[in-house]
Amino acid sequence: MKKPERLPSLSEDFSRWYNTVVQLAGLAEYGMVRGTMVFKPYGYALWKSVMRYLGQMIEDLGVSDVYFPMMIPYSLLKKESEHVEGFAPEVAVITHAGGEELQEPLVVRPTSETIMYAHFKNWIRSYRDLPLKINQWCNVVRWEKRTVPFLRTTEFLWQEGHTAHATESEAAVMVREALDMYDRFAKQYASLHGIKGYKTKGEKFAGAVYTTTIETLLRSKKALQLCTSHMLGQNFAKAFEIQYLDKNNKLRYVWQTSWGLSTRFLGAVIGHHGDDYGLVLPPYLAPVQVVIIPIIKKEANKEEILKTADILEQMLRGQDIRVFVDKSDHSVGYKFNEWDIKGVPLRIEIGDEEVREKSLTVYLRVTRERKRLMMSNRVYVQIKELLSEISALMYERSKAFIEENTHEVKNMTGLKELIKDGAVGFIKVWFKDDQKVADMLQDRFKITPRVIPFETYDEIGNDFITGEKGARITLFAKAY
Amino acid sequence: MKKPERLPSLSEDFSRWYNTVVQLAGLAEYGMVRGTMVFKPYGYALWKSVMRYLGQMIEDLGVSDVYFPMMIPYSLLKKESEHVEGFAPEVAVITHAGGEELQEPLVVRPTSETIMYAHFKNWIRSYRDLPLKINQWCNVVRWEKRTVPFLRTTEFLWQEGHTAHATESEAAVMVREALDMYDRFAKQYASLHGIKGYKTKGEKFAGAVYTTTIETLLRSKKALQLCTSHMLGQNFAKAFEIQYLDKNNKLRYVWQTSWGLSTRFLGAVIGHHGDDYGLVLPPYLAPVQVVIIPIIKKEANKEEILKTADILEQMLRGQDIRVFVDKSDHSVGYKFNEWDIKGVPLRIEIGDEEVREKSLTVYLRVTRERKRLMMSNRVYVQIKELLSEISALMYERSKAFIEENTHEVKNMTGLKELIKDGAVGFIKVWFKDDQKVADMLQDRFKITPRVIPFETYDEIGNDFITGEKGARITLFAKAY
Repeated sequence: MKKPERLPSLSEDFSRWYNTVVQLAGLAEYGMVRGTMVFKPYGYALWKSVMRYLGQMIEDLGVSDVYFPMMIPYSLLKKESEHVEGFAPEVAVITHAGGEELQEPLVVRPTSETIMYAHFKNWIRSYRDLPLKINQWCNVVRWEKRTVPFLRTTEFLWQEGHTAHATESEAAVMVREALDMYDRFAKQYASLHGIKGYKTKGEKFAGAVYTTTIETLLRSKKALQLCTSHMLGQNFAKAFEIQYLDKNNKLRYVWQTSWGLSTRFLGAVIGHHGDDYGLVLPPYLAPVQVVIIPIIKKEANKEEILKTADILEQMLRGQDIRVFVDKSDHSVGYKFNEWDIKGVPLRIEIGDEEVREKSLTVYLRVTRERKRLMMSNRVYVQIKELLSEISALMYERSKAFIEENTHEVKNMTGLKELIKDGAVGFIKVWFKDDQKVADMLQDRFKITPRVIPFETYDEIGNDFITGEKGARITLFAKAY
Repeated sequence: MKKPERLPSLSEDFSRWYNTVVQLAGLAEYGMVRGTMVFKPYGYALWKSVMRYLGQMIEDLGVSDVYFPMMIPYSLLKKESEHVEGFAPEVAVITHAGGEELQEPLVVRPTSETIMYAHFKNWIRSYRDLPLKINQWCNVVRWEKRTVPFLRTTEFLWQEGHTAHATESEAAVMVREALDMYDRFAKQYASLHGIKGYKTKGEKFAGAVYTTTIETLLRSKKALQLCTSHMLGQNFAKAFEIQYLDKNNKLRYVWQTSWGLSTRFLGAVIGHHGDDYGLVLPPYLAPVQVVIIPIIKKEANKEEILKTADILEQMLRGQDIRVFVDKSDHSVGYKFNEWDIKGVPLRIEIGDEEVREKSLTVYLRVTRERKRLMMSNRVYVQIKELLSEISALMYERSKAFIEENTHEVKNMTGLKELIKDGAVGFIKVWFKDDQKVADMLQDRFKITPRVIPFETYDEIGNDFITGEKGARITLFAKAY
C-alpha cells in the first residue's frame, strides 16, 4: 500500500502534512474569525476522551469541578502586577453589551486566577476550609498572531485546576501531584513520553513563583508543552487578600497552585504519533478503536461476511470497545486509506478466506502489519490485549524518539554545528538560567529553554556559554 | 424537626426562599460582573449529571458532539434578519483584542446558528451528506437586566443541537424527537412534569418557523420553560445558502432544526421540587444520592457504628450509587438540617439501636418519613428500589401539582377573578394567537402565552376575549 497521494510526506514537509491530515481526517477546520478553529465530530471526540479519563484522574485527586464566569472585570485582572503584564497584551475586550457601552470593560478569560481568587477570599475563613481544590473545564481566549490547528488557536478548550493550602510544602506537593497525574495520563492514555521539569524564570507563568512542565517533541523535532503546573506561592493570596485563621487563631495567607492541560495536547497526539499514512491514534483516546471492514468479492459469501462483522461488532461493543463497521459503498482500497488517515489503531478485515477459515485478519495501524486471529466468542480478549500492546508499543516508540532526538552540546561551537538549519530536537546543555544568554540564543538560533529536567536537577555544573558556576542541565529547542 | 430558621418559608416568600436555598445548599453564588453566577461544586455536579444522562440520550439520537468558536463576526449575525432583530439587543460585543481595535466587532455567541451554518454550507454538498446532526455543550451570553441564579443569568451553560435534512417532514420529525427526548429526560432523571406544545408566534425563537417547548411551574406558581426545539424551515438555509444536490441532481435548500436545554433547567429542579426544609433533589440527578450519618452516643458502640457505615458505603459505591458518609464533628441535628437543605434523597442513620438490631434507619427526603431496613450484604437492592420509588413519587407529585394549578378561564371576568394578585399557575383559555390580545394581557395581568399544548391542538374554538373563531387551548402564566 502506497501512502495516500493527497497527504504530503511528513518527513519532507511536516507543516503541510500536519495541516492536511487535520483536514483529511476530519478533525477540525479554520473558523471565520482569525485564529479560531471548529472542532469537527472526530476531533471533538478526542477531546471527550481527554475529558473522560483525565477528568476521572482529577476527581481521584480530591478535586471538585466548578464553573466560573468567562467575563472578568478589567480591574480584577490588574490586581496581580506580573499577571496583568503577562496577559494584558493578548486579551479580548468586551466594551459594549445589551446595546450600551459598559462602564468598565470586561476581558474574556485568558485563564481564571483573578476571577476565581476574588471568590476564594470569601470561601476561605479558617484552616478547616483548606485545602480547597477545584477544577473547571472551559474555553479561554488568548489573541494569537499565527494559528496552527490545536497547537495555537485564539480560543481553546482546557481544564484549569486551582488549589489553596495552609502551607508552602503542601502546595509544593500539589504542584507535583498534578504534574505526575498529567504524566500518567500522557503515558497511559496517549502513549506520549515527555520530560518533566521546571520552566526557566523567563518561561514561567505570569504571576507564579515557579512553573513545572512536561515537554515533548513532535515529528518536526520542535518541542511542545503538554501541560503546566504552577506554584503561585502567596503572590495572588496577597493581591486578593486570601487569608485563613490557623489553629492558633492567627491570620495567614494561603499558598496556591494552578495547573492546566488544553486542546494543545491533541496537537501532540497528532504531531508526535503520526506518519506518512496519516494519524496514528493511541488506543485509549481513539474515537474509533476498532474498524471492521467487510470485504465482499463473491455475492455468495456476502451474507456470511456481514453476519460475522455484526456478531463481532456486538461482541466488542458489549466489552466497551469503540467499534465501527464500514459498510459504505467505497472500494476496499479507499476504505483502507481512509481509516489509515484517521489513525484507527486496529482494523479487522473479514473476507472470503476469513469466513472459510473462521478467522479474522487484524491490521495494526502503528506497525502496518497484519495478524491472523481465530474467530471465537472469546476473541475480544485477544483484541483487548492487542489494543493494550499497541498502547505500550507506541509509548516505547515515543520514548525512543525523544531519546534519539536529544543531543548534548558542550559549547557554542557544538551548538552551531548541531543546528545548522532546521529543528534538531532537544539540545541538552548546562545553563545558568540567565535571561541575557536565553535572549541571545533565541535571537541567533530561534531556540528557547524548554525544561530543566527534575531528573538531573540536583547536579550543578558550569554554564555552556559563560562558563559560570551554578548551571543546571536544561533542554533547549525550537518550539511551538 | 422544625424547619431551619435560616431558610425563609417557601410558601410565604418563594423568591427569598429560592435565593437563600441556592446559597445555603452551596449551589451557586453571584459573580463579580452583573448578571453572572459562579457554579459551586454542588451546583456544578447537578449540571454534570445533566451532561452525562442527557448527553447519552443525544448520542442515542445519532447526533455527534462538536465545538464551534464562541466569537461571531457581527456581519454573520445579521444574515438572517429576524434572528439579528431578536438577538442584537442582548449581545456582548468584543471591540478590542491583542491590544488593538478590531476591524470588525465580534459578538459573544448568544446561540450558534449563524456561526455553525456558515460552515454547514461547505459540509453539505449532496443528499448523501444528510441528515447532518450535531450538538455542542458550551457557554452562551445574553445580556440580562435582572438576575436570578440558574433561572436568568447573563452567561449560562447549555447544549444546542443543530440538524439539517433533505425534507420538511424529516425536519419536523426531528423537532419532535428532540422535544420527546427532553420530556423523557425531565421525567426519568429529574422527576419533572411539563406541558409539551407550541409557542405562540410572539414567543417563538427569532428566525424559526415555529418553536416547540415544555413548560412547567415552580412552587411560586410562575411558569418556566424547560427547553425548546425549533423548526427553522429554510430561513437560515436561504440566508446562508445551504444547498444540496438531490438524487435527480437538482439543487435544493436544506430544512433545519435547532434545540436546546440550559442550566435554567436546574432552576426548575430547585424551584419545583423544593420545600420549606430546602432542596428536594431527584435521585438520578442528585450529586449525593445517599448520605450516611453515624450517630454516636456511647463510646462503646463507636467502632461498630463506624464499621457498619464504612461497609455500607463500600457496598453502595460498588453499585455506582453516589454515597457520602458524614463523619464531621457537627451535631446530629445540624447534620440532619444540612442534608435536608442539600436535598439528598436518602439519609441512612446508624446508631446504637441500629447496631443492636443489625438494621438501618432510612429517611426519605421527599416525604420526610423514616423506614427500617435490615442490614445485609444485599441491602443495596432495597436502597436502589427506594431511590427508584422516590423518583416515581416525585414525578407523580410534580404532575399532580401542575394539574392542581391549571385553571380554566372562560372570559375576562373569570380571568380577573382568578388572578387578583399573585401568580396562580397555568391559566387555560381559548386563544387565537393574536398579538394585540397577548400584549393587552401582558400589560394588564403580566401574563404571557406559555404553550399551546399538543394534546388539544386539534380542537378549535372561539377566542376567550374576542370571541373570534380559530382559537386553540393555550396556557398563559406569569413566567420567569
